[in-house]
This record gives sequence, C-alpha cells and structure tokens, in this order.
Amino acid sequence: MVERILSIQSHVAFGYVGGKAAVFPLQCLGYDVDVVNTVNFSNHAGYRRSGGSKTNAAELNSIFESMEANELLSPTRLLTGYIPGAEALTAIGQLAAKLKKRKPELIYLLDPVMGDAGRLYVAPDVVPVYQSMLSLASVITPNWFEAETLANMTLHDLASLRKALTVLHKDYGVPNVVISSIPLTTWLADLLPSNIRPPPEEHSDHLLCMSSSWSATQEKPTIHAGCVPLIPGYFSGVGDLFSALLLGQFKPEQGDHPDGVTPLSSATSHALTKTHAVLTVTYKYSETLPPDERQASDEEKDDAEPMRRIRRMRGRELRLIQCQDIIRGAELAELREMHPWIGLWDI
Amino acid sequence: MVERILSIQSHVAFGYVGGKAAVFPLQCLGYDVDVVNTVNFSNHAGYRRSGGSKTNAAELNSIFESMEANELLSPTRLLTGYIPGAEALTAIGQLAAKLKKRKPELIYLLDPVMGDAGRLYVAPDVVPVYQSMLSLASVITPNWFEAETLANMTLHDLASLRKALTVLHKDYGVPNVVISSIPLTTWLADLLPSNIRPPPEEHSDHLLCMSSSWSATQEKPTIHAGCVPLIPGYFSGVGDLFSALLLGQFKPEQGDHPDGVTPLSSATSHALTKTHAVLTVTYKYSETLPPDERQASDEEKDDAEPMRRIRRMRGRELRLIQCQDIIRGAELAELREMHPWIGLWDI
Repeated sequence: MVERILSIQSHVAFGYVGGKAAVFPLQCLGYDVDVVNTVNFSNHAGYRRSGGSKTNAAELNSIFESMEANELLSPTRLLTGYIPGAEALTAIGQLAAKLKKRKPELIYLLDPVMGDAGRLYVAPDVVPVYQSMLSLASVITPNWFEAETLANMTLHDLASLRKALTVLHKDYGVPNVVISSIPLTTWLADLLPSNIRPPPEEHSDHLLCMSSSWSATQEKPTIHAGCVPLIPGYFSGVGDLFSALLLGQFKPEQGDHPDGVTPLSSATSHALTKTHAVLTVTYKYSETLPPDERQASDEEKDDAEPMRRIRRMRGRELRLIQCQDIIRGAELAELREMHPWIGLWDI
Repeated sequence: MVERILSIQSHVAFGYVGGKAAVFPLQCLGYDVDVVNTVNFSNHAGYRRSGGSKTNAAELNSIFESMEANELLSPTRLLTGYIPGAEALTAIGQLAAKLKKRKPELIYLLDPVMGDAGRLYVAPDVVPVYQSMLSLASVITPNWFEAETLANMTLHDLASLRKALTVLHKDYGVPNVVISSIPLTTWLADLLPSNIRPPPEEHSDHLLCMSSSWSATQEKPTIHAGCVPLIPGYFSGVGDLFSALLLGQFKPEQGDHPDGVTPLSSATSHALTKTHAVLTVTYKYSETLPPDERQASDEEKDDAEPMRRIRRMRGRELRLIQCQDIIRGAELAELREMHPWIGLWDI
C-alpha cells in the first residue's frame, strides 16, 4: 500500500515547530505529506512577537473541499497538531470523521496541543472539541498537563494515573496513548519497575515517557515506559517532532512480538531515540553560540530585555536539517528502549 | 559560513509545485530554509480548480517585519518564485532590495514565474515589477517565453537571441541567466556546436538548456548549453525544482575552472541532471498507473470530462520523496554536462 500522510498544523517561516518540525522528518522517512497550514506566522510564540495570519475555518474548508472534489483526499495517515480556535478545530474534526468513516483503517495521530506546565494556551472552548474527537484517534500524544485536561483530573498518585488512562482508553475510546517528557516526580519514580527507574539521586535529571495500548479484547492496557536524561533549557517544537516520528514509525500491522514489544512501544522507542538525539545535537550547538545567545531562561530578565529571550529562542531552534541522517536512520543512535511497566495495575 | 535560504513562493497542500517542489530538495542538500507562502492553495492550477487563499501584501509585510524585529532576517541566499499580483511582488521586491543592500554578497535566484508557451498567466502589471527587480538578482531562471517577455522581444534568430541576452545582462544588470526546457527549434539547433547538437532527426525529441554568465569586466557573456531527451507529457513544478537545485548547488566562490567550467555551468549541470532524473522516475511511475490516470493530454476531452485532466495531473506529481537519494547525491545519475557554446558571438 502506498502511504500518504495528511498533516494539519501550524506553519512558521523561521524555525521548527508545528508543520516545520513534522513534515521534513516524515518526508525523510519516505512519506508523501499533504500539508495544510492552520496558521502562517513568522516564528513560534516563544519569541513573544510574531507576524502573519491564522487560517480560518472557511479557508480550511475551502482547501478540504477542493481536495475532495479533485480526489486528492485519500491519506492513509492523518496528523493534526496546533489548531487555534474551536471553529477551525471543529472543521478539522469533521474532516477527520469523514476520512475515518471512509477508511476505517486510517491511522490518525491526534496531538491535542492545548498547553503545558499547568497553563492552557488555547481558548478553553477548544478542550471539549478535542474530547469529542478522541474516539477518531488511533494514537494521541498529550503532554502531562494535556492528559490531565482531557481526562479532567489531576494526576498525583497511582490511583489517578490508572483512572486517567482508563478514562482515555475506555470512556473516550482511544486505543493508543503516549505521554512523553513527563517530569519524574518522586511518586511517579517510585512506581517504576527497577529496570526503568533511574538511581534515586538522579530522578530529577530524567524525563519519563510512557505508552499505553488497549483494545476492547483486553481487560487492562499494556503499558511501557522509558526514561531519558533531561536536557537543560526549553526547546520548542520537540513535541511536534516526537509526534511526527511516532506516527511515521507506527506499524500496527506488525502486531505484538512474543518478547512484549508492541507496535506502539516499538514506534515510541524509535521516536524517543531520534527526538532525544536531535535535541542533544541542538543543545550542544546552542552551547557553542556567543554568550548573549545562550543565556539561561529568566522571565524577569527576558521581560526587561526582549531581545535576550529572542536570541536564546533563535539559538535553540531544532537542528533538524543537520540531523537528517539520524532521522532517516542512516546514522544510528543507541535505541532508547521502552520496557513493559509490569505491575502498574497490580500494585 | 552557515548558509540559510529564504524561499518565497506558493504553497499547495497536495503535490509538488512552488515551495513544495523547492524546499524539501534544499533541505536535503543541507540548507535551513525559511519558508514564506505567497498563496495557500489545495493544489496547483493545472487541476483547474483549487481552494484556499492568497497571501496579500499586508500579510507578507507583517511576516517580514516580525522576522526583522526578531533578527530572523539574515539569509545568505534568497529564492523567489510564483507571486500573484503586482502589490505582493512589490513588497517582495522591497524586501529583496533591503536584504541585498545589507548583504551585497546575498545570492538571489529570481525565478520570474509569469507564463509559458506564449501565454501570460499573471496580471500584465507584474511584468514591469519583475523588470525593476532584475538588477537585484544574482541568477534568473526564465523559461523561453519569460525571457522574451522580460527582454521585450521575440526570439526567432541568432540576432534576437544575442540581443535579448545583452539586454538582460547589460541593460538590466543580471550576471547569470539560465533558460531551461527550451524547445529545440531548427534554427536554434543549427546554431549549436556539433558536440551539443543532437542528430538532426532527433532535434524535436530534445530540450535545450543554456546558461549565460557575464560580469562588467567581460566583453561578451560566457555561454554554456546542453540537451536532454524530451519526456513526453506535461509535468508541473519542474521549473521550481530546477531553480531550487540550481540555487542550492551554485558556488560562486569556487570561480572558473581552467577547463571552461564556470560556477553557473557547473550548478546548471547538476540541477539539470537531478531534475531530469526526478522527471524520468515520475514519468515511469505515471506509466504504471491504471489507464484512466494516464491518458494523453487533450484539452478538448479534458474540458468535456474534468476528472480526466485531474487524474492525469495527480499521476504526474513529481516523485520528489521517492527520489531523495538522487537529490541528495547519494544515488548518482550520469552527469548531464553543459558545454561551452563557443562561437555564439562570432558566427
């Protein structure tokens, strides 16, 4: 089968977030990618000022309708990311429903880009629209805050983690959930099997990634987890890159391996490995820049001198182009394996 | 020097023309590419119906101004392609002038996308704006009709060809002119040196590509030419791909070789080789499609049955993703060399 991905997310002229972080890697992996831009901005929001415009629902529908009329709307995979506003998101939800109805085997990775670190950065009326779309998704990739928002609960202990996964899988009908870049709090680290858990004194220097697959024939979801060393500082577009690599390498037709590896855990391992490798290269590059382009994050100083923030952002744009051999797999990085999280449901 | 290209051209969701034909190849060649979209359409105009919207001059300026304010506007190379309307083109011309003034060594490839085969497909008031921008360009890549339009004369014999090149180089101040995909009429074939000219019975099965470099220290331009076999049928985006590959592989700092190869002729050889290889793969692919997706071009039948045209267009979208090893140079195609066109000025 010829694979073709429809990617619907933001576009920035400079740098790598949204579609700019997702499309090139997917092309490198061999996919033809149809690209619909939900915004056309000069740069990402982290710079604090940007120019350009958003694509409204009418423009999106005009693009979808012409693609449909021209028989250009038959992707095998769908990827959606940042979509500003409930009206545009609703239009994209209707498209996803149509594509899924027409082709039930469509692999839809929905990245519910809504906020981070306790803060919503989309309008609140976007949340219920995302919730209504979850049943269409094959895979979702919320961050920790987005998982809390979708499941409508705070994750603070084993019981709430179990409950949230159950809500996402069983109530909302999502077969695959991947949460990456999870700050490894003590309670979470304590839950991890010993082969996944970093040494206690290094907990806070790691991020956790967990994947959870569930089908109606299973009583409990299959959970995998892995830890990666934390790279200091904030980098934009990492989640967009991760989601794209996850979708590009997800091969559900391969089924579960006898050793416990599932299609989701395998794709997550590869996406995590490549994303971490790109981020490492980006971090090392940013460290070679002149001092005023690599000053530490400091909101107060940044607010007093906006160019300070802007130069740091510019120096931390993902080194995607320079890492294309890593993305393509021609240059191998050590595989960051996901391990079965045995016992999560039994403790 | 870290190289960075600013590409300003059209965007289509499906298929490969404009930025979709140019950006991925440039990224494969290792360039960070800043991407400003002059239109956001569902598909290229050859399908005859498309949805989406054009980016107006105010939106373009908003993007440029924010990039400028954020110190994100320092490309080493500039690539401009299809720009609908004189107002948007004027905004881009002003940007090009500013970039060139700030960095005189900026390499600007201006592709004056205006029409083909005797037909203008932009508004006529675009032509003088392009003419006013020519002095900013390092390289221009008009097709035959566009060269005629810019020089404001019909090319029908040796004298008019010499005159047009003189006008473009000396009156408009363009150092490098490349005209590709020239139908090899008899008078043109007769002018070619024997090592470039195809056998007489095969003239019409070839296209001519010519490159012409000139600097103020030279009395006459240095002309190179090469022929490639004609691939039957019409394919969109070929010129956009060719221009991108030409810009990406143009290394003026290398200077002329003793054997007569110039930076322009060398870049043209490589761009021609890769473009022809991609087109060959695309043609062979289109020949494997079901009969109703590969019917011959026939305006009358297409008008009676629009889906006939649409399916042919879809089957002839460039196979860029499948040809990425060719573009990258990892998979070598036989080099289609440009040869010095000795005697053009002496005959």
